[in-house]
Amino acid sequence: MSDILNRVAEVIESRKPGNGGDADTSYVARLFAKGDDAILKKIGEEATETVMAAKDARVSGDGAKVLYECADLWFHSMVLLVQFNLSPQDVLDELARREGISGIVEKAARKSD
Amino acid sequence: MSDILNRVAEVIESRKPGNGGDADTSYVARLFAKGDDAILKKIGEEATETVMAAKDARVSGDGAKVLYECADLWFHSMVLLVQFNLSPQDVLDELARREGISGIVEKAARKSD
Amino acid sequence: MSDILNRVAEVIESRKPGNGGDADTSYVARLFAKGDDAILKKIGEEATETVMAAKDARVSGDGAKVLYECADLWFHSMVLLVQFNLSPQDVLDELARREGISGIVEKAARKSD
Amino acid sequence: MSDILNRVAEVIESRKPGNGGDADTSYVARLFAKGDDAILKKIGEEATETVMAAKDARVSGDGAKVLYECADLWFHSMVLLVQFNLSPQDVLDELARREGISGIVEKAARKSD
Repeated sequence: MSDILNRVAEVIESRKPGNGGDADTSYVARLFAKGDDAILKKIGEEATETVMAAKDARVSGDGAKVLYECADLWFHSMVLLVQFNLSPQDVLDELARREGISGIVEKAARKSD
Repeated sequence: MSDILNRVAEVIESRKPGNGGDADTSYVARLFAKGDDAILKKIGEEATETVMAAKDARVSGDGAKVLYECADLWFHSMVLLVQFNLSPQDVLDELARREGISGIVEKAARKSD
Repeated sequence: MSDILNRVAEVIESRKPGNGGDADTSYVARLFAKGDDAILKKIGEEATETVMAAKDARVSGDGAKVLYECADLWFHSMVLLVQFNLSPQDVLDELARREGISGIVEKAARKSD
Repeated sequence: MSDILNRVAEVIESRKPGNGGDADTSYVARLFAKGDDAILKKIGEEATETVMAAKDARVSGDGAKVLYECADLWFHSMVLLVQFNLSPQDVLDELARREGISGIVEKAARKSD
């Protein structure tokens, strides 16, 4: 399903200054050149825009903007992950770990019923 | 790579009130029961916590909290997607679409060099 | 103490398109011309920058950035208030109302000790 | 106009642990006891709720929620200011300083017309 996350992470990785990312031609290279604060501001911005999009979607009946803003939020999260030498795979592993724990907890809960 | 996203989305989907989600035993079912605003607040909260974790990580030298908060942010984004009848696959498709466009743009840019 | 809030609110008010605000020369007039979403994005941005500034201040030992970002946050809050035909005085009245209630509650709490 | 800001700041100040603030009876004392992160999370939360309230207000035609959320945002900003040994008066001074600069800039702009 999400080789795409790997592919996007690779492109982001290639935009790091040390990997030849060029701030003149690449938006992501520009974010890396500016550093942590520029990336973190984008996390805040995209979260706000996701909230606004969801509110708008209830009025317009069209969820497309929620999808776009969510994609923006995930994309900039991936830039942040790469900035901290992490990857989307690490997030997926963490989600899998929790889902395993959650599955165990629920199984235990069912037993105790 | 990310069958895990599908699996998490399925679990989230199963927590909707119409799918038998039980607000007494499930955190996600409780979010769905409360509605849009409760989910959107979590998006804002998790984004703020991601920003804080990144700042802390520069002091502690330990990126683990960035990873946890990013996983929280993605998890709650998935709850929002499901609330709007969307899925993580839709986000991946959107990212793939953009990456394709971006690939085309860059190929064009290289040609024009 | 805060005739300054009144004065700032008056300046903001004068930047509304209907009051002759000129988007070519005034930042606030530009925000009004763009509408709600532009103003709300600024609320999200300035809150994020306030959080970042507080984290930075603990490292640098210099709180000045917290002050600047807080001033930015209040300023853009005032633009939002004016956009909704509200004023900083309304916020102060609301805070006074709560403080009164809080005072009454605490007095009651002391009595019940 | 805003002796109220001074009064609210004094109450907040009195809730600091060192000033006898009691986390069992006071919400603000509890925030101080938890420390920076608890206060910063509230800044993020209240900003998100302000954005949501503004979106809701356009549907309902009732701006009251914008006012309440803005008051919440200012209140928690004041807790943050006190946490960093700053005061609302410092914010007002900063706004006055900017307004002065802005006034000078605009006067200069008019002269250059």
